[in-house]
Amino acid sequence: MRYRLLIEYDGAGFCGWQSQRDGGAVQDALADAIEKFYGTRLIPQGAGRTDSGVHARGQVAHLDIEGDYTPQKICDAMNHHLRPHRIAILSAQVVPDDFDARFSACARHYLYYIVARRAPLTLDAPQAWHIPRPLNGTLDTNAMTEAAQTLLGNHDFTTFRSAHCQAKSPLKTLDKLEVHSKFDEAALDEGEGQIIKITATARSFLHNQMRSMAGALKLVGEGKWTPRDVKASLEACDRAACAPVAPAHGLTLMQVDYEK
Amino acid sequence: MRYRLLIEYDGAGFCGWQSQRDGGAVQDALADAIEKFYGTRLIPQGAGRTDSGVHARGQVAHLDIEGDYTPQKICDAMNHHLRPHRIAILSAQVVPDDFDARFSACARHYLYYIVARRAPLTLDAPQAWHIPRPLNGTLDTNAMTEAAQTLLGNHDFTTFRSAHCQAKSPLKTLDKLEVHSKFDEAALDEGEGQIIKITATARSFLHNQMRSMAGALKLVGEGKWTPRDVKASLEACDRAACAPVAPAHGLTLMQVDYEK
Repeated sequence: MRYRLLIEYDGAGFCGWQSQRDGGAVQDALADAIEKFYGTRLIPQGAGRTDSGVHARGQVAHLDIEGDYTPQKICDAMNHHLRPHRIAILSAQVVPDDFDARFSACARHYLYYIVARRAPLTLDAPQAWHIPRPLNGTLDTNAMTEAAQTLLGNHDFTTFRSAHCQAKSPLKTLDKLEVHSKFDEAALDEGEGQIIKITATARSFLHNQMRSMAGALKLVGEGKWTPRDVKASLEACDRAACAPVAPAHGLTLMQVDYEK
Repeated sequence: MRYRLLIEYDGAGFCGWQSQRDGGAVQDALADAIEKFYGTRLIPQGAGRTDSGVHARGQVAHLDIEGDYTPQKICDAMNHHLRPHRIAILSAQVVPDDFDARFSACARHYLYYIVARRAPLTLDAPQAWHIPRPLNGTLDTNAMTEAAQTLLGNHDFTTFRSAHCQAKSPLKTLDKLEVHSKFDEAALDEGEGQIIKITATARSFLHNQMRSMAGALKLVGEGKWTPRDVKASLEACDRAACAPVAPAHGLTLMQVDYEK
């Protein structure tokens, strides 16, 4: 029987999603847990190969298990054996045998989280990119939004693609790239800073694409790049034209969509 | 010159706010940082003596420093020397000599954060109390709200007071106690769970009062207590009538207010 798993994890403890020869990946921890209750080592296939340090609140994977297991039994058994790893199986459901977590996905949603303020981060440090700013400074999110719009649609994203990317083509269609900012003047005066959430949706992403785009938008927010610089960087189709890639820990795979 | 500091910290690394003989408290880390840039060891006086594990996004403290330091210089110097502790000085300002972070405070605001779901927590584990629930179960937040209302106003809060509480009187006035719940049916079906935020405001709180109230409201949410049980527990004026105290890591001191 094929099961679809919805998986959440704190990326800090893992060298990424993809199984490694020496272990330490999310897939390895899942395979360990499966082996403990099922007796056979199986590696679930995931929708998104998140990098080392990247988090997930809605990773999806599929897994073939024989026997009389209810979906809830699979969740509970895996969660039991996953301890103390910070991975949780939120739900499981039986799916048709041709369901493939990676190839059946029709959309992936990512969140990149930024806190811009002068003081270092404490509670938000594990999940936000800290942009140090002068006391009352803010990132220019109007300019970031304008820059984001130049990336929408179907493009050759070679500039935003890691050298290690295994995709056959650098052509991707970016359906959504939005910049949401939250702050109030009083809180800024108090040094609490500006919260910026960059959300993106596409059928699929190139390796490092989201972090490369976040890195470019950050430069625009700081006024170091203009939206036109982002467009020029895209059009260069040259990895060397890419802004410094944003750190992994600010990124979370939020959701993967499938046709009903 | 007297300075008012706005302080944020991750409570996980500390044995509470209050300075300990062997160190390890937030006050100790602050005193260490002050000594490093100022040469003299000073202990800032705080508005709220948060327990071991309790977080703060808006702790306030005052500090007397002589010399030609701008508020920003004090922030920057302290933040520099506080590394790698997860404490940040968000802002500093010069205040009159009679400003007292503790005794001048006219309101304190706390947040207690709960996630109710069957699967263990991952990304939210450091800052939320995990209430394990059946797959599609939710805590009854209407009942929790009704119970919260029985605690509003001026009462003898002996039931909700730690045996270690040093306050002279168990009489306190609770100005606000609200229960906010967020979930959608689809996300519940997927096991993502229910997010509950309990917010409270009072001029001051007894030791463990907020965590004791959160513990009682949680029992109401689970249907193990009724709102009338909470009222009876309050009226008993007996610590033995208290519900199990909610864990420290779900609690955050959000804000302290002062007269302008």
